[in-house]
Amino acid sequence: MNDGEVTAAVESMAQQARAAALKLSQLSTEKKDAILRAMAAGLRSATAEILESNAKDIAAGEEKGLGKAMLDRLRLDEARVDAIAGGIEQVASLPDPVGEVMEEWERPNGMRLQQVRVPIGTIGIIFESRPNVTSDAAVLCFKTGNATILRGGSEAIHSNRAIAKALQNAGAEAGLPEHAIQLVPFTDRSSVTALCQMDQWLDVIIPRGGKGLIETVVAQARMPVIKHYDGICHVYVDAAADEKMAVDLVVNSKTQKPGVCNALETLLVDAKVAESFLPKVAEALVAKGVELRGCERTRAVIECAEANEEDWGTEYLDLILSIKVVDSLDEAVSHINTHGSHHTDCIVTGDEARAEAFLQSVDSACVFHNVSTRFADGEEFGFGAEIGISTEKLHARGPMGLRELTSYQYRVRGEGQVRS
Amino acid sequence: MNDGEVTAAVESMAQQARAAALKLSQLSTEKKDAILRAMAAGLRSATAEILESNAKDIAAGEEKGLGKAMLDRLRLDEARVDAIAGGIEQVASLPDPVGEVMEEWERPNGMRLQQVRVPIGTIGIIFESRPNVTSDAAVLCFKTGNATILRGGSEAIHSNRAIAKALQNAGAEAGLPEHAIQLVPFTDRSSVTALCQMDQWLDVIIPRGGKGLIETVVAQARMPVIKHYDGICHVYVDAAADEKMAVDLVVNSKTQKPGVCNALETLLVDAKVAESFLPKVAEALVAKGVELRGCERTRAVIECAEANEEDWGTEYLDLILSIKVVDSLDEAVSHINTHGSHHTDCIVTGDEARAEAFLQSVDSACVFHNVSTRFADGEEFGFGAEIGISTEKLHARGPMGLRELTSYQYRVRGEGQVRS
Repeated sequence: MNDGEVTAAVESMAQQARAAALKLSQLSTEKKDAILRAMAAGLRSATAEILESNAKDIAAGEEKGLGKAMLDRLRLDEARVDAIAGGIEQVASLPDPVGEVMEEWERPNGMRLQQVRVPIGTIGIIFESRPNVTSDAAVLCFKTGNATILRGGSEAIHSNRAIAKALQNAGAEAGLPEHAIQLVPFTDRSSVTALCQMDQWLDVIIPRGGKGLIETVVAQARMPVIKHYDGICHVYVDAAADEKMAVDLVVNSKTQKPGVCNALETLLVDAKVAESFLPKVAEALVAKGVELRGCERTRAVIECAEANEEDWGTEYLDLILSIKVVDSLDEAVSHINTHGSHHTDCIVTGDEARAEAFLQSVDSACVFHNVSTRFADGEEFGFGAEIGISTEKLHARGPMGLRELTSYQYRVRGEGQVRS
Repeated sequence: MNDGEVTAAVESMAQQARAAALKLSQLSTEKKDAILRAMAAGLRSATAEILESNAKDIAAGEEKGLGKAMLDRLRLDEARVDAIAGGIEQVASLPDPVGEVMEEWERPNGMRLQQVRVPIGTIGIIFESRPNVTSDAAVLCFKTGNATILRGGSEAIHSNRAIAKALQNAGAEAGLPEHAIQLVPFTDRSSVTALCQMDQWLDVIIPRGGKGLIETVVAQARMPVIKHYDGICHVYVDAAADEKMAVDLVVNSKTQKPGVCNALETLLVDAKVAESFLPKVAEALVAKGVELRGCERTRAVIECAEANEEDWGTEYLDLILSIKVVDSLDEAVSHINTHGSHHTDCIVTGDEARAEAFLQSVDSACVFHNVSTRFADGEEFGFGAEIGISTEKLHARGPMGLRELTSYQYRVRGEGQVRS
């Protein structure tokens, strides 16, 4: 297809999504949950077709020489398909935020106002290699009454098509409005550009993938974009920290799952406890296979590689930790606000006043006192499901659950009040 | 200045705004309110300088041949300066949303979570001819702990500079952090482009002005933009409406202040009451000088000009009203969702079930039952102040008060919890 044909096809999908959204907003929670359960069952029944399609993607990926990690993200098996279906059932069991009265009040003239949660409308999801996103994102958006247009990466196109088809077919039988869940059936690069121009029909785009993808979308999109950028997370070990607790928190934050955005990347240590604390934490980290990169003052206490300026702004996503000795809480806060990514940062201390000062002055989505950074997660927060961890300050900040996929409207009731 | 110099100057301002924002976020409500009162007093003391500067703008505007309405928007006098200062005192008296605990809960592992309102950070305001926006926008952003960069239109540059200087000087003496309120001191067009590129330093841009300005910003901005687009507002008069109430609501919605976004533009009338209702409402509207443009079925009942397709999508901002007869609530809702601007729409009816159906199916920021559309307003909603009426679905929808100028962060406290 040429670019004009791609744009026309995407525009037609976007218009249909808008029409579907109006129908979706009228579905009851019971109806939506019944459709979700039907989609889960449909996905399970389609396991054979899905795995067959996935095998095509894997074969193409191997031919193209994709790396082992990439192929692993791409690969589905019976257990993974079953887990995706289980995820749909989990979403069906969650409370529906749509219709919730967020606030209500009355004005002196007798008007009664309500702020009520409603669906956003239409959501574009642009993602890369994991085919499970097709289902995960679509069902979270559907549960909240939104229509989705999914645009996945070319490596997973056969798998994505098979999953979308299974959801659409099973959903349709159970009453899913047509075009409520659409997958862009081709992977021309210009389809991303086209989606970014559909601000009349698409209310928001959520890119799920690497920095390159996000930046492409941000540069082109005319509608709001909810970004999920890096997590350069810090733990600051204050002079009043319990050293044993601090070691446990640092080790857990760094090593429990190093490849994710809420993993620890930089450790800050108060100079007053550096000599005592650094050898203990270094021993525990090295035992877990972590490579340490320290500032000069760190290297005066423990043996490790040298950290340079670049390290302070790097999300390793690997068993590497940069370490800096600081003279004060203020220096720690300033380092975090300057070099961090405003994602998740933690203070370890027994001093309540300093803990509160840290929580109030660190400009991050999640600020923690004495808990592992790995808890920055929708499931761990109790949201039941998560579409990602937003690095936005507007609309949704930090872990995003169902509520963050809604908008609101003001409903005002009166008896003929006029303005004078 | 050439474009490179403009960009460098704007970037330096944006960096300074970010630094100021971190200081602003730490100010207590009492301190902020004291600074606001000092700024109000400072503005009053500077009345002579402000009026002198304003006279330059007016002279330049007259020379350039600006229209009467434009010159009126531009013109300040003692009463207007006093009103601006009064507006600052009003903002000082409002409750501060920053620090509010929106929700708190505990997890099974003992972690305590709080979702707490915090400032957004840095806000760019790009506006056109009204010099009062310099003060109005800056103080709303300041009250909520945000740093602002204001970029006003060239017609008001002398007035804007004088107002900004008065606020900055009086504020500084009372403890306003440096660079908390900055005005771009030049009006090169490239300064708008430059602001739109500062996504590293500016968290959001709010354009205040016409559609052309908003579209320029949307096309260029890399950060979120809170748009205030048209209001194509509807009143739907249902078969079960009290006709006297309906006439009053239509007349008030249309004529009480026709030049604003919450004024009525299109009247929809149920066919079952068209013959009885249309003559009554037409008489009342014509008495107020309103020009009527009706669909064919309207013109079968009353004499008026013909409405064409374009009328259904036009925000007249004038004493003109388009009228359409519809066969059902569904047709009214569908017309509104298709042709409206998702701003404010009202049903007049005595039938509760139909009223609720309307409120739940119209996809607009404000949906009203039996009240004038003119109530779609931050002050009328009880927000105490308003930065505008957002046509966004994300972050802030409808009237925006102080709360909509905040973000939030999650503060989590524990005793060493780790993730397993």
